[in-house]
Amino acid sequence: MDKEYKIIKELFLPLSDKKKTMSLSNDAALLDCSQKQVVSTDMMVEGTHFDKSYTPFILARKLIRVNLSDIAAMGATPYGYLLNISIPKNNGFNWIKSFVRGLKIEQDKFRIKLLGGDLSRSEKIFLSATIYGKVSKKIHMNHTAKEGSLIYVSGNLGDASIGLKLLKKKNDKRIKSKEFFKKKLFLPVPKIDIGRKLLNYADFCTDISDGLVRDLKKISIYSNLRANIFCSSIPLSTHAKKIKKNFSDEKNFWKLILGGGEDYELLFSIPKSKIKKFQRVKTFKAHEIGFFSEGNGLKIYKNRSGSSDLKYNGFSHF
Amino acid sequence: MDKEYKIIKELFLPLSDKKKTMSLSNDAALLDCSQKQVVSTDMMVEGTHFDKSYTPFILARKLIRVNLSDIAAMGATPYGYLLNISIPKNNGFNWIKSFVRGLKIEQDKFRIKLLGGDLSRSEKIFLSATIYGKVSKKIHMNHTAKEGSLIYVSGNLGDASIGLKLLKKKNDKRIKSKEFFKKKLFLPVPKIDIGRKLLNYADFCTDISDGLVRDLKKISIYSNLRANIFCSSIPLSTHAKKIKKNFSDEKNFWKLILGGGEDYELLFSIPKSKIKKFQRVKTFKAHEIGFFSEGNGLKIYKNRSGSSDLKYNGFSHF
Repeated sequence: MDKEYKIIKELFLPLSDKKKTMSLSNDAALLDCSQKQVVSTDMMVEGTHFDKSYTPFILARKLIRVNLSDIAAMGATPYGYLLNISIPKNNGFNWIKSFVRGLKIEQDKFRIKLLGGDLSRSEKIFLSATIYGKVSKKIHMNHTAKEGSLIYVSGNLGDASIGLKLLKKKNDKRIKSKEFFKKKLFLPVPKIDIGRKLLNYADFCTDISDGLVRDLKKISIYSNLRANIFCSSIPLSTHAKKIKKNFSDEKNFWKLILGGGEDYELLFSIPKSKIKKFQRVKTFKAHEIGFFSEGNGLKIYKNRSGSSDLKYNGFSHF
Repeated sequence: MDKEYKIIKELFLPLSDKKKTMSLSNDAALLDCSQKQVVSTDMMVEGTHFDKSYTPFILARKLIRVNLSDIAAMGATPYGYLLNISIPKNNGFNWIKSFVRGLKIEQDKFRIKLLGGDLSRSEKIFLSATIYGKVSKKIHMNHTAKEGSLIYVSGNLGDASIGLKLLKKKNDKRIKSKEFFKKKLFLPVPKIDIGRKLLNYADFCTDISDGLVRDLKKISIYSNLRANIFCSSIPLSTHAKKIKKNFSDEKNFWKLILGGGEDYELLFSIPKSKIKKFQRVKTFKAHEIGFFSEGNGLKIYKNRSGSSDLKYNGFSHF
């Protein structure tokens, strides 16, 4: 029995949906088509999305959560995933063993199973997952925001990007809350329940993976509207509020909070006609941060009375 | 409009199934669940699966074909795929433009559409695709080979691995057939029709991606049988037969042919009860190369009368 076969049999087979994957013995897996479903895929590349400070255990957990977040943004319920893992040959078995330990925790937490994948070697680590979710009745669409709809986020923004910034500054002892920010960066929480609950209210819904600025700009383009947001309404963690004091130019702080990605909070809007009911029945946190108006692009105001417009484009891979 | 958005809108949107992907504007794509389907995923990593001699145009075509081959091995009919592309930032737009030109050719040839994906940057090129196929009535399974079944391959073996070997030897002018072997390596032909036609005959079916030795050994383990094959029965191209003469030790030639991967021919077996009918009705090439017997592992014989058993394990990533 060669090593690759041993890895698949001993490490991945216990994670798999044995019926759908035919015990990982086939060239492809069967998909459960008893109801409508959605699919999404996301990568994590060493040197781009993470560095050596991530253990394989954390990488596995983050990879799953980042992918689950797309299913949450659709209002669907996840059930399975495919994996592509390419890692250095040296110490491969132990690396994957620790990675699989992380996968197992997430599988149990989010009730999903491994459906298949591919394993290879490379100098740098490359990971991708493809994730499947079942659709109950409908899904969220991203080109359907309406004029006058209020824009919301499901939680605090910027903690992950502060975490990333701190990770690059080794041993900065001034920052006591480093562990808090690192955890927010390493283990984002996919908002699956909220995504589902919003199906009856939101006119669009997406997850903030590339930063609020970039993700909201996309929605503006798709919906052919102008998004207006207020910095003073952006929810911040107590830790982030403390960090804010370190910035001599407030604009740089907001660039970090609004431009940095990886928070994986949901971004959505509620049309005027549904706001009252939404406020009354919602059982989760939702922070109103602005509104859509006629026009195009994104306007970022310091506060609700001010007129100064922060110009900032956000992050792009290219 | 930032560059990443421009790439998606100008290059990928024309490739996409606009209904299922909602014009690539959503966090996930809808899957067509009108009938049963299979899914598979395969990677291509720079430095492991390919080097600088591959253009983006060829990479795209090979990536699609390698993935289609898994759908062929299941006896299914492909309809769509997801893409993960991670490439250096420098000259990204032009690289992707040429890559997309390759995708378009394959999409038209195999009648498939882009369903979604993810785009990132990295030092080295990393590619993966996830491919979907519709199942008509049943699929091929890999743990169901029977004792006495004859083992077949759908075409010549070893041309791709000779191509790979020649690629590493720059400017070897002795080999006139270099272009032939390179083409076999760069553009394998997924045997979709044969895979489907075999549904009524084969007791197992897989595609030879990791080399005959490794892929057949896996089947032996899954089916709890011994596979016996004869080198003299392995189909070879005229070009490969010529190359054979350059080998002073014939065993090294067979190691290359039987151990080298990437031919993507189908490997299957036909049970005794169906052989006569199969021989009569088959409309494609199928080369009988051996048989299954009680026992386990793989025995490689020089010819049908000989007893010498070539011991060789094949290629593993780990």
